Order: sequence, then structure tokens, then C-alpha cells
Amino acid sequence: MIEICQFGAGRIGRMHAENLARHPAYRLRYVVDVHEPAARAVAEATGAAVASTEQALADPAVGAVLIASSTDTHADLIEAAARAGKAILCEKPIDLSRARVDACLALAHEAGVPLMVGFNRRFDGNFGALKRALEEGRIGRLELVSITSRDPGPPPAAYIEVSGGLYRDMMIHDFDLARWLLGEEPVEVFAAGSCLVEPEIGRLGDVDTALVILRTGSGRLCQISCSRRASYGYDQRLEVHGSKGMARAENVRLSSVEIADEAGWHGEKPPHFFIERYAAAYRAELDHFAACVQEGKPPSPSGEDGRRALALADAAVESLRTGRAVAPV
Amino acid sequence: MIEICQFGAGRIGRMHAENLARHPAYRLRYVVDVHEPAARAVAEATGAAVASTEQALADPAVGAVLIASSTDTHADLIEAAARAGKAILCEKPIDLSRARVDACLALAHEAGVPLMVGFNRRFDGNFGALKRALEEGRIGRLELVSITSRDPGPPPAAYIEVSGGLYRDMMIHDFDLARWLLGEEPVEVFAAGSCLVEPEIGRLGDVDTALVILRTGSGRLCQISCSRRASYGYDQRLEVHGSKGMARAENVRLSSVEIADEAGWHGEKPPHFFIERYAAAYRAELDHFAACVQEGKPPSPSGEDGRRALALADAAVESLRTGRAVAPV
Amino acid sequence: MIEICQFGAGRIGRMHAENLARHPAYRLRYVVDVHEPAARAVAEATGAAVASTEQALADPAVGAVLIASSTDTHADLIEAAARAGKAILCEKPIDLSRARVDACLALAHEAGVPLMVGFNRRFDGNFGALKRALEEGRIGRLELVSITSRDPGPPPAAYIEVSGGLYRDMMIHDFDLARWLLGEEPVEVFAAGSCLVEPEIGRLGDVDTALVILRTGSGRLCQISCSRRASYGYDQRLEVHGSKGMARAENVRLSSVEIADEAGWHGEKPPHFFIERYAAAYRAELDHFAACVQEGKPPSPSGEDGRRALALADAAVESLRTGRAVAPV
Amino acid sequence: MIEICQFGAGRIGRMHAENLARHPAYRLRYVVDVHEPAARAVAEATGAAVASTEQALADPAVGAVLIASSTDTHADLIEAAARAGKAILCEKPIDLSRARVDACLALAHEAGVPLMVGFNRRFDGNFGALKRALEEGRIGRLELVSITSRDPGPPPAAYIEVSGGLYRDMMIHDFDLARWLLGEEPVEVFAAGSCLVEPEIGRLGDVDTALVILRTGSGRLCQISCSRRASYGYDQRLEVHGSKGMARAENVRLSSVEIADEAGWHGEKPPHFFIERYAAAYRAELDHFAACVQEGKPPSPSGEDGRRALALADAAVESLRTGRAVAPV
Repeated sequence: MIEICQFGAGRIGRMHAENLARHPAYRLRYVVDVHEPAARAVAEATGAAVASTEQALADPAVGAVLIASSTDTHADLIEAAARAGKAILCEKPIDLSRARVDACLALAHEAGVPLMVGFNRRFDGNFGALKRALEEGRIGRLELVSITSRDPGPPPAAYIEVSGGLYRDMMIHDFDLARWLLGEEPVEVFAAGSCLVEPEIGRLGDVDTALVILRTGSGRLCQISCSRRASYGYDQRLEVHGSKGMARAENVRLSSVEIADEAGWHGEKPPHFFIERYAAAYRAELDHFAACVQEGKPPSPSGEDGRRALALADAAVESLRTGRAVAPV
Repeated sequence: MIEICQFGAGRIGRMHAENLARHPAYRLRYVVDVHEPAARAVAEATGAAVASTEQALADPAVGAVLIASSTDTHADLIEAAARAGKAILCEKPIDLSRARVDACLALAHEAGVPLMVGFNRRFDGNFGALKRALEEGRIGRLELVSITSRDPGPPPAAYIEVSGGLYRDMMIHDFDLARWLLGEEPVEVFAAGSCLVEPEIGRLGDVDTALVILRTGSGRLCQISCSRRASYGYDQRLEVHGSKGMARAENVRLSSVEIADEAGWHGEKPPHFFIERYAAAYRAELDHFAACVQEGKPPSPSGEDGRRALALADAAVESLRTGRAVAPV
Repeated sequence: MIEICQFGAGRIGRMHAENLARHPAYRLRYVVDVHEPAARAVAEATGAAVASTEQALADPAVGAVLIASSTDTHADLIEAAARAGKAILCEKPIDLSRARVDACLALAHEAGVPLMVGFNRRFDGNFGALKRALEEGRIGRLELVSITSRDPGPPPAAYIEVSGGLYRDMMIHDFDLARWLLGEEPVEVFAAGSCLVEPEIGRLGDVDTALVILRTGSGRLCQISCSRRASYGYDQRLEVHGSKGMARAENVRLSSVEIADEAGWHGEKPPHFFIERYAAAYRAELDHFAACVQEGKPPSPSGEDGRRALALADAAVESLRTGRAVAPV
Repeated sequence: MIEICQFGAGRIGRMHAENLARHPAYRLRYVVDVHEPAARAVAEATGAAVASTEQALADPAVGAVLIASSTDTHADLIEAAARAGKAILCEKPIDLSRARVDACLALAHEAGVPLMVGFNRRFDGNFGALKRALEEGRIGRLELVSITSRDPGPPPAAYIEVSGGLYRDMMIHDFDLARWLLGEEPVEVFAAGSCLVEPEIGRLGDVDTALVILRTGSGRLCQISCSRRASYGYDQRLEVHGSKGMARAENVRLSSVEIADEAGWHGEKPPHFFIERYAAAYRAELDHFAACVQEGKPPSPSGEDGRRALALADAAVESLRTGRAVAPV
């Protein structure tokens, strides 16, 4: 049984806490949040105790932490947890500053604690089946990856302001999937973007509709299409092409029901957003983290995966500014 | 919290026990099975105690029972549980003898205990969405129901022998769905059947491939197609036609992945069998039973629903024998 | 080049005439219709001449006739054409009287002229692909056939009155497809039917919603579902089950376009009715008839196929009346 | 009746000639090809005469020409036909040199003859339905276009050598579709490409796998994905996103048949290549050209559309060379 402390009691924090509480491998011991009523509500719902960061990390019974607080607190918590010798599962991104990310990775390495980054989509059953088909050679030698990723609607301006922008906040998941599927590091990033959905996003210097092209050393190509809006629901699709064929993971739908009437055929929308769409993936992510903590398996996605996805996002931002293909560093 | 006793620790019993153990509304107190090692294994996995029928029913803390033992024990257990004042959730069928079913229903009624029958398919999310579309008038006035229900492969001969035959053992689920969707009682049953899959089934006097037509008082029609074999996986589909259109619930698939290659397009099979296909439905069934026990909601499907589905199965058997449309009694 | 005379210049006659006019193997010489303006319009559009039945059949240059006039004229025209030694393609049904059908078949046989019946669906590319899959053993040994056949809306009462009723007029196509797919003769027919769509149809003693079960000598089963109404368009589907799997031909759609919006996913309807849905099939039917005339290939579907489909329809009518399974004679 | 002369009797030329011969608005008078046996074969199959360019253009009865000879002859033939006052339908591209294209357009303008370019895909029924949905506002204000276009296999090296490269030869169709759907001119082109399919293509300095991003003045985005290989058949898909939803035109399939067996679900491939996939589109293209000639309708796609698609292709080539976004000129 892994005694674990959850940082962050917001929407995604609550979901993680409930998953931890029901998971046979974990005992959720503490919930920490600067907003105490939120921490208390989650603690009550899950049978955990409310604690401060210091109390939680000082407790030797605690073996692991799950960091799902706001982005600007991630690096501090990673460092404190690493110093206290706790295994770490941290929501993306580790930090918006690459120097700070490097520091966190170095510290976790020194402390000898596993550091896993919450790229939940790798644990989706459909994407996993696609990856397996690829690995089994069902489509031959990989040539091209195409990722479509559209949120149901834009977040509030206050969130956009501290988010690091679309490429670092939203497309970072797609950069991780691209690396995971390409099986090679991209050496060239080209980005185009527009503000078409919400003018306020443009005023904040960000884009809400974006296309990216990646190219790997051996010439494999990847296109990513992102938008902050999809009125028909959370659009999450992968498509891969190889020398012998193609494989794609289409959207899942709320049910298998189809209705036909005078206006044509009608099917259901995809689940609303990430909490609903990736419910099972978030649980499977915890399974993997437990195996890392209990069996010493190296975490995947690792802190390094987090760093590389951020490097691609930074390269995209630079490409958008300069109109040039940029090599990630 | 409902303290509950589980009868039966076979495949479906184990699944129910695990669902009960994880369900917030239940505390699984006892597991009962004539085969003690099975009972012990399930008890250990779920934190319950092994008990005899007498011990379990004598415990005043126990408020409810879930009967998932072999069919020939159902009626005895229902009667014993009713006498002990326990709420009852019983796997289908209540019994193969209609007289015995009537006796069970009468006793439960007298004892004032809720009696629910485990027609799990009513709790499937896809079928539920279809039923809602129907109730919301999306396809107008209902005219015709079409049900396809095929098992992945035939059960062993030993099971067939005591099963009551395809209509009472397998198609009884479809009779229940038919009644649920038709919204009216069938007044005429016509059955055709063949032994095409497994000759041993024919030697036992049963069929393995069967078609049925139902007709209600107002003239609504229903066709049911069943087989003991579907090499492509458990085939579970509903289709309803009304004055304004049609709705159908297609099979679910193991993942949304499609592969295209020189041979064409390929998609995944449906889940293997009922345990996998109806995993969520079995949990939702427990939600409803909890609401019946805790809030006094009348159970649906009820014991009466169990009786009527069996009456349709009996009429089908009679029709198969005589080559005539038969009115269920 | 086959010089051909077209009988009937109504909706389906006009379509046949236009197909004949554009077909490289035919020269459409005459159009015959009791309603002269209709004959003239079709003749002008196709470059043919208007003629009387006698004139057309007396012309020794005419080698073949296509009979698409009203049902009550079919038998007379078949007999006259056979006597004149012309090859015959006749729309279904040959006649509503089985005695008369037998007489037509006998006369055509004596005269040594090919007699083909216009069961156009056998020539549909999708159904053809399904049949080929079956013949290639893709689903193993055939066990069960399921046919869905729904018209977009009921015909006028005047048509119903002389149609011979739903089983002989509409379901006769499905009986032919059933025989074609089953590969064996049905020995038992059970029919159920209701008037749910148009009360006037009921007043005329007919049904508008109907289910039929067929059983062959070896036990193969078939279910047919027909309705005079499908608000979502002409519904034409086949499904076959065998020892190794299933194959189905789904409806075709007006285009491959799908739209997703706040209300869900939307696809297009099927083509409106038989003229649109089976446009290519009607042309392929003419290819086959040309091969029969020019190369002496036996026509398929033959007059005998027309007789047997009618026998199944008659058995269905008898079954509906008696509530019993009926053997076709 | 438009008396027309067909230049080119190769694969696509033969198809055009057969369509012209069957089209009610045209009379195919001459077939011209440097390879006389090819010209003769097509002439015989269509009832046309073989002629030289000079003979054909000198005949005052000839009102129009269809140019489907090799690319390097297009500009000369356009100029000669324009001088002779003939209406012109020319296969893409007009020429690989933009200066020469400008000269052709100027000459056709001066001569007052209609000049239409054979971007056949605009006439596909599925793409037309998508375009109509867009124009009817079904998905709101357009934001993003995604085009997938993959040939079944690479052409021979000899063809690649004179083709102008993937962007000018193959993706030019997609550039035209992009402009047609975007409703605005792209102001920025970014291209990435690799040689992954056929090393010989790389040795010739070309790519076989390519991604492009376009950006219009108002910020609309477009991604195009092309490959010289798709082992599963000719892959031709469009997807458009707007403020209220998305629309896509999926691939068409050889039939609607699906087979399910132990290995899963299987559907048919798309038609093999452009001749099969766009058979109806090529005929509809001739309808439009006839309306231009007979009713003075301006041709669409016009010569100017041909010029602009080539400008985008040239910009893509420049972008691939420089790694920069390039403005088309």
C-alpha cells in the first residue's frame, strides 16, 4: 500500500483524489490546498486528512505525492518532495521555464526518487491499441503521424494569462503523443497560429487555432491541429500512416445509439472534456505509477519526457514568432 | 450502508461480489456457496466472511441478498430470504416452473420484501440511451422492435441440460428487452428454431439458432434473432422503428481503432461476453437495487417482469412444438 | 444489337426506356402504352417509335420485349410475346394468380424464348458483393439470413387495391433475395402483420408492417422485416450469418459527408426510393438480359424464380390468415 | 451540340473521349495524339476521326478542345486553340512555368475564348455536398481546412522527372481544393517533405511524403497531407472546421459490405485511383464546360484558378528549400 499525499483540490485534483481513494494500491493520507475549504471537501469525500505541505512531507509514512495544484507551484513542490524522498507524479507541465525544469529533473535524479509526468493520454485504451498495432508492424514502417486535438471551448482569460500559451499549455499533450508515436525525436518544428475563436485570447498575445508540423531526423513527418473550440465536443483523434497501411483512433461517443429520421442519420457527441473522456486513462496512469513505486519500474512518461515536450512547445512559439522552422533544443 | 449476503461464488457470483465490495452503498458481509473453496476465494478477495445459508439469513444485520447461484437453487433461496425479511436481487430466471415462480412472487409480496430480477441489459448505457430516445418521441409512435442477440459460443452440454432450453435460458433476456421497449404486452408468440451450431444440443432436444416474432394487442411487432454462436464476438443489438424514424444501438467495440491495409478496412471485435460487455450495466443494476432498498423505490425489473418474460419463453417453446402462434398465459 | 420493344411508359417504364436507349447492346424500337401521351413522351425522349402491341410484336426485327406495364397486363403480354418468339424481360410479378403464372412459364418454355423476371436487387453491387463473400466461404456455412426492406411511404390506396397486398407486391422482392441467399428452398413460412402506418390500408384488408420467418429443409432460418414507411428514406439492408462470421450490406447514403455540431453527428439519408437506389442495378439487369438473348445464357432470375417467390408470398398470406406456419406449394 | 476535339489518347485522354462520346451536349469530332495507334484506337472506340493538330484547329465546325496530352504540350495547344477561337478545357497544370501560364491566360482573354482547368475534384458529389454545407452555414464561420490526399503508389521515375515535383504535379489539386474551400487567398505557405516511399524519387530531387500549412489574410488555416503511397487505396478526404461545428467527406468504398469474423470487422477499400474514384466527377466537369460554351457561363475552375494553384505550389517548393513560410506571388 502506497501512502500518498495529493496536492491540489481543484477539479482535476478532486478527480485524482477520488481515484486514489478507490485504488487498491494507494492509501490517500493527506490532501493539501492553499484554499482550505477545497482541501477539506476533498478530504471528507475520500477519508483523507487535510495537511500543510510541510506536515505532509514530514510524515515518513508518506511514500509518494501527486501534484495537481496550479502550474506555478509544481517546481517548488517537486523539489520539496524530492528532498523528502517521496516518489512524484506531477501534472504537466513541470514548469514553464526550461531552466527550472532542468533543475527539478537534476534534483529528483540526485534524490533517487521516481518522477512521472501526467501525460494521461498515453494511458487511453484506444490510443494504446493504436500504439500496439504500430509496434506489431500492422502498418509497416511509420511515415506520418496526424493528431487532432480540440477542446470544447476556451478557458477563461485569467487562465490563458498564466498558461504559457496554447503550445505550452494545450498542445504539449500532443507533442508528447507525437514523440510517443514517432519513436524518434523531432529535429524541426514549424508552427502557424491564429486567433479566430476568442478575441481576448489574441489581446493576451496568444492564439486559439494552431497547426504544427514536426520532422524527425530520418524524415518522418507529423502534423498537429489544435483549437480551443469544438462545438461538437472534445475532439481527440490520432492517425498514423506507414509503408503497409494506416491506423486511426477515432473519437469515442457517449453511446452507440444512432437515430435516423427525415433529416438524416444522427449519432451522439464525444464525452464533454478530459475528465469524462479520459476517466479510465487517469485510473490506468495510477496503476503505472504504483508499479513504478512498488516495483522500481522507470516511470513513463518520465520527467525527461516532460522536458522534451516543453522543448517542442518552446520551438513552436519561436517558429510562430519568426516564420521559420526551428530546431528544438 | 446495506449489509448484503451473496449466494453463489462462480463466475458471475464473483463479479457481483467484487462489484458489491467496491460499491459505496453496500457492505458485503457473507459469501455462500456449496463449493466451499469457491466461497472462500471470493470472501478473501472481497473482505467478506464465508457462511452457510442459515447463518447468513439468521443474521439480523443482513438487509439484502444477491442470488447468483445455480438456477435450481433460486426459488428456495428467494423463499428463505423472503421469510427472513431480506430484500432480494435474483439472477434470471426465478425458476423454470411457472407455478414455483408464482409461489415465490406471492411469498415476497406477503413478506413485504422487494424482489428484483437481474435483467442486466436494461442497465446498459447504450440501451438506456435508446430507450430515452424512444420516450422523448424522437422516432414518433413505436411500430416495430428488432433484437439481435448472439453468444460467442455454445455452453457445455451439461449446462444446456438443466438450462430450460434456449428460449428460457438465453432468449429470456430478449423477451424482457422486448417488453421493456414495446411498452405493451405481447399477445402472440411465434417461434422457429434449428440446431445448426452444435449437434449435441439437438440431441438434448434443444435448438441453438432461433427466431421469434411477437405481436402486441395494438399490433406492434417484434422480431428476435438468437444464436449460441457468433465467432466475431458477443453480438448485442437493438433497433426500433416508429412513425417518425428509427433508432438503433449498435455493438460496442474493444477500441475505436481502425486499420486500413491492402485487404481493406479493419475494426475491432465487441467485448467477448456478458461479463465484459455489461460490466458497467451490472454496477448500475446494483445502484438501482440500493435505491429500492434504501428509498423504497419499486424494483424494476421486478419479480413480475421475471414471470412475464418466462411466460413468453414458455409460449415460444409451445409454438416451436406446434407450428402455431401461441398466446402467452 | 437487340431490337427491343418496351411495354409501359410510366415511371419505371420511362427509366427502363432511357436505360435501353443508352445501352450499347440494345436498340429501343418501340414504346407501347395504353396512355398514348405517355408513350409519345418516352418515345420522343429516346428516339423510339410509338406502336400498338400488335404492331410491335408483328415486327420480325424485334427480338425482345421489356414488360413494365401494370401488373394485370403482364401475363397477356408474356403470352403474346412468347407466341411471337420474342425474348422476355418482365417486371415482377408475372401475375397474381399462380395458375396463370404456370401457364405463362409453360408457354415460354414451349416457345423456347428466354423469360427473365425483373428482381432488380440481385444486380445491386453491394448485394452482389455480399453474395460473393458468401460464395467464397468468408462466413463459413450459412445459418441465418436477415432482410430489412422499408419503403419511404405508402402508395396510394388505388395501387394497394390491385397490388395483391404487401406480401405479393412488396415483400416478393425480399422472398427472392431470401431464396437467392439461402441457397435452399424454404419449406415453412410464418407471417405476422399489422396496419400501423395508414388506416386505409387496413380497410382494404392489407397490412403495412410485416414480419416473416422462413425455414429451409436443412434448418436454415430467415427473417424479413417490411414496412410501407421509413421516414429516413428507402431502407434496404441484408445480413447473413454463418459458422465463421457474418456479413452485411448496409444502406448506401447520398454522400459520404458527416457533420458534427452541438447536437451530435449527422450523416446523409439513403437515396429516396428504388429508381435512385437501384439505378445501377437496373442497368446491370439489362446487361444480363442482353447476355441471355445474345449468348443463350439462361436468365437468372428466371420465370421459375418468379413463380417460387410468389409461392412464398401466397404461403405468407395463408399463414397470416391462419396463425400457422405454412408450407409453400 | 458542341463539336469538340480531344488532344491526348493516353489513359486519361481515353476516359475523356469516352465521356465526350456518350455526353448529349458534345459530338467528339477528332482525336489527336503524337502516337498515332493510340489516337486510332480511341477514335475507333468513340466514332471520332484521327486528325493532326492543324487539321483539327482549322476545322471551323470545331467549337471546343479538351487538352489531355502530356504537360509539356499544354501551353502550345492552349495558344493555338485560343488563336483558332476554340473554347478550351485543359487538364492541370497549364504549364510548369508561371510566365508561360500568364501568357496563355492573356492570349485566351484577348481571343475571348473560355479557358477552364480540369480540377476534377471540385465536381465530386461528396466534396460538392461538403461545400454546400459550408455555404449554407451548417458549421458557422470557417476556421480551418484539412485535406488528406494519398495516391495508391508512386508513378514511374520517368514521370516524376518531368512532373514538376510532388507539389506542382500532385498537391496542385489540393491547393485548388484549399482555395475553393477557404474562400480567401492564402498569404503564407509552409512546406515540409521527405522521401520515405521510393528512394529513386529522392535521387531525382523530389519528395514523396509532404505536409503543407496555408494561412489566409484573415487567419484561416489549412493543412494538407500528401503521399505517393496508400496501400489501402486512393485516400481522398476533406475536413472543415467552423465556429459551429465540423464537416468531413470521408472516403467512398467499393461497396457497403462489412464482414465480421474472429479477426474483427472488415470493410472494403476505396476505389483504386482517380479514374475510378472520380468517374462521375469527370462527367460532371463536362456538364459544366458545356454550360460555359453554350450559355456563356464563366468557367470555374478558370485559367486564373490554375495560375493561383501553381503559385501556391511554387511557394511550397521555395519554402521546402528555405525552411521559411513563403508568400505566394
